[in-house]
Amino acid sequence: MKTLVVVSHPNIEKSDTQQFLKASAASLSQVVWHHLDANLPFDVAAEQQMIQKADRIIFQFPLYWYMAPASLHQWLTEVWVKQFVYNAHGGLLTGKSLGIVVSFSQPESAYQLGGRVGFSVSQFLAPYAALAEKTGLELLAPLTIARFANQNDTEHQQLLIRYQQYLTLTHPDNAEEQAQWFIDRLQADPDTKIMADELAAQTDEIGRLRLTLHELKAGESE
Amino acid sequence: MKTLVVVSHPNIEKSDTQQFLKASAASLSQVVWHHLDANLPFDVAAEQQMIQKADRIIFQFPLYWYMAPASLHQWLTEVWVKQFVYNAHGGLLTGKSLGIVVSFSQPESAYQLGGRVGFSVSQFLAPYAALAEKTGLELLAPLTIARFANQNDTEHQQLLIRYQQYLTLTHPDNAEEQAQWFIDRLQADPDTKIMADELAAQTDEIGRLRLTLHELKAGESE
Repeated sequence: MKTLVVVSHPNIEKSDTQQFLKASAASLSQVVWHHLDANLPFDVAAEQQMIQKADRIIFQFPLYWYMAPASLHQWLTEVWVKQFVYNAHGGLLTGKSLGIVVSFSQPESAYQLGGRVGFSVSQFLAPYAALAEKTGLELLAPLTIARFANQNDTEHQQLLIRYQQYLTLTHPDNAEEQAQWFIDRLQADPDTKIMADELAAQTDEIGRLRLTLHELKAGESE
Repeated sequence: MKTLVVVSHPNIEKSDTQQFLKASAASLSQVVWHHLDANLPFDVAAEQQMIQKADRIIFQFPLYWYMAPASLHQWLTEVWVKQFVYNAHGGLLTGKSLGIVVSFSQPESAYQLGGRVGFSVSQFLAPYAALAEKTGLELLAPLTIARFANQNDTEHQQLLIRYQQYLTLTHPDNAEEQAQWFIDRLQADPDTKIMADELAAQTDEIGRLRLTLHELKAGESE
């Protein structure tokens, strides 16, 4: 799967979050990192070609006043035009998926009814759901990054894993794909291969146990 | 009341909607028309001074992918900064109001659950509600303009009135303020003064009848 990460950030060198994400994606051969603000004015044909080549498109940005920075909006206006992303018959990006990686400086709990912000992140991202629907893109649940600067090393490590999975797994929220992702990585390294084989065996065992449980329940309901 | 109309549109000369709104506001002495795209790069101090002088701020834009064009986002990022619009104690724009004039090319009915867009305009504007809350601004219900090009003369005339009221009335949705607005305008013109006096008398009569009705109902419930 080829992934295009479209980053909107007017001051990316000073963003620890974006620098961390860039480093996290650097080892992934099928991922293209594309910083919009560094590509102004846009070469529309080149931008459209990048979209066409990708199986997954990621919109990645910090929340500025609960929305994306200007460059993403300008890019959408100029590049995501009729006849390229949709026509009279429907969306033209069918078969591709859309992910959103969004960072903000308040805790996740601020983004809910009664919280300091009073709206959820999903509410703010409603336009992207409508955009996905219009263009035929399959929308992934967003990957949210709250208060990156306040996260400890373990949380950063977890973020790196979540981010790499978000960019490369067909279904980033699927537990079995996540387990397989770990196994693949551990098996690639001789030092951890034994652990990987053990993990793979356990994963199979979990699958068998689930199946047995499912059959037992089915029997009960008959 | 002084009103600042902040217009975000990358191609305003070709927008019939914006040209119509501009002409509609031209006769209003207390209204400043401010086209963002013509003021790039922003002089932050000058922009902030304009905001400070206004009692009402209007964000006016077409929906591009269900959001404002890039210039409004850039302006918010550069001009609406901490210490100017909010600080640790709360919003710094308290006492001012925020209106949103938003135009789009699909019918209003598309913007609802099960409609072609599937989301309401209010859902797309959630970030502005959060922004108003954060800065202390009183948020007005948005003025929506659907399919301007398809509207007939009567509808355009109604839009002109709604728009002028939105820019100048303390409570644009209040029926009594709307009636007074008509009376003021009719009385200013000798040709329509008699009609205006008649309308004023009827408005008073409606007020008296409502009061009587209210008293009767209060009597019933005692």
